[in-house]
Amino acid sequence: MRVVLKYGGSSVATTDKIKAIADYIIKLKKEKYEEIVVVASAMGKMTDELIEKANEFTDKPAQRELDSLLSTGEQQTVALLSIALQSKGQDAISLTGFQAKIETTGVHTKSKIKNISVDRIESNLLSGKVVLIAGFQGINADGDITTLGRGGSDTTAVALAAELKCECKIYTDVDGIYNIDPRIYSDAKPLKYISYEEMMEMAHLGAGVMEPRAVEIGKKYGVPIFVGRSLNEEGGTYIVEKSYGLEDKLVTGISVVKEILVATIVNLEHSSEKTAGIFSITEKFGLNVNMILQNINKNGKSEISFSVSYSEKNLLDNTIEEIQKIYEDVEVKIDDNLGMISVVGVGMVNNSGVAGKFFSALSNVGINFYQVTTSEISISCSIDKENINKAVEVTAKEFEI
Amino acid sequence: MRVVLKYGGSSVATTDKIKAIADYIIKLKKEKYEEIVVVASAMGKMTDELIEKANEFTDKPAQRELDSLLSTGEQQTVALLSIALQSKGQDAISLTGFQAKIETTGVHTKSKIKNISVDRIESNLLSGKVVLIAGFQGINADGDITTLGRGGSDTTAVALAAELKCECKIYTDVDGIYNIDPRIYSDAKPLKYISYEEMMEMAHLGAGVMEPRAVEIGKKYGVPIFVGRSLNEEGGTYIVEKSYGLEDKLVTGISVVKEILVATIVNLEHSSEKTAGIFSITEKFGLNVNMILQNINKNGKSEISFSVSYSEKNLLDNTIEEIQKIYEDVEVKIDDNLGMISVVGVGMVNNSGVAGKFFSALSNVGINFYQVTTSEISISCSIDKENINKAVEVTAKEFEI
Repeated sequence: MRVVLKYGGSSVATTDKIKAIADYIIKLKKEKYEEIVVVASAMGKMTDELIEKANEFTDKPAQRELDSLLSTGEQQTVALLSIALQSKGQDAISLTGFQAKIETTGVHTKSKIKNISVDRIESNLLSGKVVLIAGFQGINADGDITTLGRGGSDTTAVALAAELKCECKIYTDVDGIYNIDPRIYSDAKPLKYISYEEMMEMAHLGAGVMEPRAVEIGKKYGVPIFVGRSLNEEGGTYIVEKSYGLEDKLVTGISVVKEILVATIVNLEHSSEKTAGIFSITEKFGLNVNMILQNINKNGKSEISFSVSYSEKNLLDNTIEEIQKIYEDVEVKIDDNLGMISVVGVGMVNNSGVAGKFFSALSNVGINFYQVTTSEISISCSIDKENINKAVEVTAKEFEI
Repeated sequence: MRVVLKYGGSSVATTDKIKAIADYIIKLKKEKYEEIVVVASAMGKMTDELIEKANEFTDKPAQRELDSLLSTGEQQTVALLSIALQSKGQDAISLTGFQAKIETTGVHTKSKIKNISVDRIESNLLSGKVVLIAGFQGINADGDITTLGRGGSDTTAVALAAELKCECKIYTDVDGIYNIDPRIYSDAKPLKYISYEEMMEMAHLGAGVMEPRAVEIGKKYGVPIFVGRSLNEEGGTYIVEKSYGLEDKLVTGISVVKEILVATIVNLEHSSEKTAGIFSITEKFGLNVNMILQNINKNGKSEISFSVSYSEKNLLDNTIEEIQKIYEDVEVKIDDNLGMISVVGVGMVNNSGVAGKFFSALSNVGINFYQVTTSEISISCSIDKENINKAVEVTAKEFEI
């Protein structure tokens, strides 16, 4: 049997942790899987440290160079893991993104995987080697090193599993997917199963355990995904087509983003062309827009809000500058005091009462909510960030999570 | 005008140093060179730190993986230098070994440059960019990352200059090439000129300022090489075809290796085939043999000695093990208490008195010397390592250096 294992930064933070993972892989190879591919992230906080170093020169480092810089982190991890495995008698080979032929497209620091040619990986698996792939990176048509954005190693792992037609195990430092972030709500329990759709909503809305693009690829190619604690086959969550037994619950999970930036554009003459124009600017600047919301006021002007994660402050500033250059009359307000809470559940599809219950739960305890957006299986509100914990508590109680 | 600049690890050890180099490159580009290629090493002690990390798993890490690991150091430096240049308004691009098409051949950790295709470099130079190349690394026919051994960035720089048909400037933390290591002999003076031949002898014999292979390439392709202090166009040494004005001196320099390992093989039935066999084993293990010495004793047995640098202790042990497996009767002794002192000078070619003067200078002060080897322009002796400083002093006095 064949498998792709993925280890995140905290699982490979020290050489001792890497040794333990090497032992675990050797055990898995003996007992369970003949063919093992491992995707690993950079050790611990290395990616952040490299970004800090780049920021010593400028707060807007050249993106192509940042990609080349950051990609070294994963390259180091897989080389060290290969050395660890070989020192324990298990043949292995590490491959960087370009060596593994992970072809990417799109802007630097946020590229997407276009194609993977697995011939070199498969021939190495055939010869009995454990194949270690640097996560988070690839190579574009110009021969430049690109990275896939935060959480990109998840995408690397699931895309490889899709191409290699096997299961993907995402090892992390939590016990699986929780219905609420256990750091915020101590009574939270890990789920045994969750559907791709729910997971994508949870991920997009800030559950943070797994990159949503990775889940999307998993769904598209039917890759069985397991999320569990490093060095542990017990517990964990399976991401599957349908989350059996969950549909009878209205809400299966609560997602939280503790800090978001919300930009609100007012006084824009309403036209779909103009709205589209705004979001081609955000696209041009590579801004990762989460929530989008548009209302038309009685004077025929659009009010458009969108949110981005706190880490994109600089990008957002550049984007807003450009928007104000092109649409001279508009006013733009950036609100940086907000967080976001969302309820997610496939049970919501056929039930219209969830929104009312959710909003009442918040307002009953005096929590104001501002922007509201919904999808088929989720409802999200922005609220003042100091109310996040309280909001989670009352929402969990309301939906008996 | 076009130039290749090379910065070693100590010159790029901190982000502040990298900023200063970026300023200097911009100044050079405005005032002197339209086309600048920069080769850089890993920051400070990073290569050593990565080796230490690998050694936490095993003292014999898989060489292919070690290469992939170590190559990240240079990749980081050139990405950061590119970010620094671009933040100051100078367009730039960093290229790894594979992106710069530096094709290598030979064993991992000690590869040799086979070919460089400079088309991508030249087109970037044409568009006004400063082109930054990760030193010390390349890619072999299997698509694996290889490194060129310690001092490999010098080789990268001179090979690029040969291919780009331009001058090469090696920037370091000393004022140029000295006739004696100034750390050992405080009265040492930097030379204005030195010939390729003398420099190669000095480098091979341990002057340590520049990689001998790099000088060899420089000589072969007639690359003008300058060695000088970082951020400084004053002073420095030019390595040229003939070192004008030096031929009238018997000895132009003294080289020292503070610690060497000398392996002596005795009781080997003499035959050229067997000697050749010994050195195909050292080659197979990738041992970097410096001095070789063979004598035939009266019983028709060979006595072969060879020296390697202290850092190759593990490789030497493996090699000796293999030699004893194949030639069962031989005895091998490893002497690890020795250093080496050499006198170098083109003036030596036509003068037979140098050896006598050198040996007398040593023995007059009671310094024993053991293995002796000579080339056309040098004489080297192994001596007890505690005598190195004293030996330099008396030799410098004897030859009025």
